Amino acid sequence: MPAEETVMEKTLWKSVLRVREASPLVHNITNFVVMNNTANAVLAVGASPIMSHAHSEVADMTALCGSLVVNIGTLDEYWASSMLLAAGRARELGKPWLFDPVGSGATPYRDEVAAKLLALRPTVIRGNASEIMSLARANKTATKGVDSTAASGEALAAARRLNGEFGSVVCVSGETDIIVSGEATVYVHNGSTMMTRVTGLGCSCSAVMGAFIAAVDDPLEAVTAAATLFAMAGEIAAENAPGPGTLQVALLDKLHNITEQEFTARIKLITHNS
Amino acid sequence: MPAEETVMEKTLWKSVLRVREASPLVHNITNFVVMNNTANAVLAVGASPIMSHAHSEVADMTALCGSLVVNIGTLDEYWASSMLLAAGRARELGKPWLFDPVGSGATPYRDEVAAKLLALRPTVIRGNASEIMSLARANKTATKGVDSTAASGEALAAARRLNGEFGSVVCVSGETDIIVSGEATVYVHNGSTMMTRVTGLGCSCSAVMGAFIAAVDDPLEAVTAAATLFAMAGEIAAENAPGPGTLQVALLDKLHNITEQEFTARIKLITHNS
Amino acid sequence: MPAEETVMEKTLWKSVLRVREASPLVHNITNFVVMNNTANAVLAVGASPIMSHAHSEVADMTALCGSLVVNIGTLDEYWASSMLLAAGRARELGKPWLFDPVGSGATPYRDEVAAKLLALRPTVIRGNASEIMSLARANKTATKGVDSTAASGEALAAARRLNGEFGSVVCVSGETDIIVSGEATVYVHNGSTMMTRVTGLGCSCSAVMGAFIAAVDDPLEAVTAAATLFAMAGEIAAENAPGPGTLQVALLDKLHNITEQEFTARIKLITHNS
Repeated sequence: MPAEETVMEKTLWKSVLRVREASPLVHNITNFVVMNNTANAVLAVGASPIMSHAHSEVADMTALCGSLVVNIGTLDEYWASSMLLAAGRARELGKPWLFDPVGSGATPYRDEVAAKLLALRPTVIRGNASEIMSLARANKTATKGVDSTAASGEALAAARRLNGEFGSVVCVSGETDIIVSGEATVYVHNGSTMMTRVTGLGCSCSAVMGAFIAAVDDPLEAVTAAATLFAMAGEIAAENAPGPGTLQVALLDKLHNITEQEFTARIKLITHNS
Repeated sequence: MPAEETVMEKTLWKSVLRVREASPLVHNITNFVVMNNTANAVLAVGASPIMSHAHSEVADMTALCGSLVVNIGTLDEYWASSMLLAAGRARELGKPWLFDPVGSGATPYRDEVAAKLLALRPTVIRGNASEIMSLARANKTATKGVDSTAASGEALAAARRLNGEFGSVVCVSGETDIIVSGEATVYVHNGSTMMTRVTGLGCSCSAVMGAFIAAVDDPLEAVTAAATLFAMAGEIAAENAPGPGTLQVALLDKLHNITEQEFTARIKLITHNS
Repeated sequence: MPAEETVMEKTLWKSVLRVREASPLVHNITNFVVMNNTANAVLAVGASPIMSHAHSEVADMTALCGSLVVNIGTLDEYWASSMLLAAGRARELGKPWLFDPVGSGATPYRDEVAAKLLALRPTVIRGNASEIMSLARANKTATKGVDSTAASGEALAAARRLNGEFGSVVCVSGETDIIVSGEATVYVHNGSTMMTRVTGLGCSCSAVMGAFIAAVDDPLEAVTAAATLFAMAGEIAAENAPGPGTLQVALLDKLHNITEQEFTARIKLITHNS
């Protein structure tokens, strides 16, 4: 049976500080809707975003940066090629990269591009339950159970299959974020439901994770620290927000000014090792 | 002579609630400047935005959604084709779709694309007076009167011509929003002049209308409810805003948290039936 | 030796008012990350932004506007052509235009496009020290000194070379903004370090400068007024901001509502004429 652990909690704040100190360059090929917000989120945690997608330079830019984040939210044929060029270069150079399969499962085209990106073995995959499940199905690593019941249970199974096949740390975002890596399953219970009323907070979380995998050696630790920081900043921001406009502003403030005291007092993490 | 009516007012709040309950998917093909804000506005009223433009999937995405919003603000040749593909599919499937002719009349290219979109008979057209007038002219449905006097009068005439020829509910936005459908002309007197100092609020209003035409059967009712809600949220937001930065944030908050009491106390609507 | 002057200070507020009165149209071909913010900044100072890049209309749009702003932050092959078409038309028509060489020096492709744009002799060049230095190098106007010491000194030399070769007013942004035009060097000491934690404030400053060069005849005066206004608005906004989210909102408010009293009380300008 899984046993609870608290060792990891103690190292997470150190990861937050490491990002601020290292201030890594994060190459983002992301969607048009969230470019501004994701760039601001990366800056707020102390790192530096670069957005670049031109075929004439995209692989050069990946080589300059500490990590790469690929997000297919508003993909098209040109941008899909950019993503594959960049992810290919990241893999070649051994740089950590994150794949955010926005809208995976919505159209055959999205699934086709997602499958090609998966084949380049992302260091991290972060998506919501439906995206993670569709990713696992589209890649034929499993067929969807006809009577699949609890969505979160199905997503957890999909995350484990993706982790097993591609070696990626998989983060399933939701009311509780679930992070899967090998034997470990981490549950992050921070956050606020009002976060679902702001566009692209998942994408921003992915971008922040991009900063963390560039600065922190262990991907599971990096992903857990980023997921916790982001959910917690949203939780604090939501407490005094009359609506999603204010929440978005306060979230950026909090990513920037959160203290160790707040972080350790708020953290709600459960780690299972099977 | 037109007679004032108040019947519609009573049903508008129900439309606001219907959007929150139905939470429709709204497919947006819009401009780069406003993608984030329009997505947030759609979320704030309780619906779900999808942004997608790839030729490889755009028609599939339209089929998945409850409505389509096409906005030509930063169009180019690729995006114009995306818009035509999506609007064509919407028409084929009988899904409601809205056309926002941003910058219509500024260049021959814009007019050419606008004419092709109009031919696909949008359910709703929303633009400012100059855009609506240029749309009517570009489509040769009328020639500009040499001595046209009041701009709003000319825009109203243009709106009526577009409604007559294409069957679209036409909303002319401005200090007073004017909505034309068949015999009915509705004047929405809510709003604030500071709203003109925030980019893309017209585009956001169009996106919100997209949510309403997906959830509310009668397009005139849907457009009137959306125009009223949006203008009123801006009006309330402007009251305590020192400038356009705060206005934008408070507007999103208010779209989210507006109550029936506020809505019915504030509404300033005049309906004429000729 | 350079002599301090205060004459210019007195005319700067008049430039702020002139932009509000003239409300010029500013054509922006800029990057995806900052389109919303730059449009809002242009609106907040009282001008009107137009974003357009389609090959089918981009030169027509330049002809309609009072000035052009070109920003290569997320350039690609299509957009680079758009920029060259628009800048060529601006030059042909004698319209003022500004070049913001975002990320210049990061990749060979960026340098290649930057060199082609420089050859069209921008009225103004605005970038950070590293961009201005790489611009000067890429254009072979000088080779980088092996032992170059103070970055700001090197950037000043690069700015002078670019001004000498292309006739552009050059603004090197940083903790102190340095503006070079012929014999004059102006130092703007307003601003806040928190501004570096918000994405695209340099790009927004460039867009605001675009409004000023459209409305104010003398480019040096226009650039100095815009740089001062922008840095000062950021400085005031930062004073009460808990983080970069709030800063961004308050900056837009202040660009809109700044008074002559605030402006003249805050201004920290030093002008040298060699």
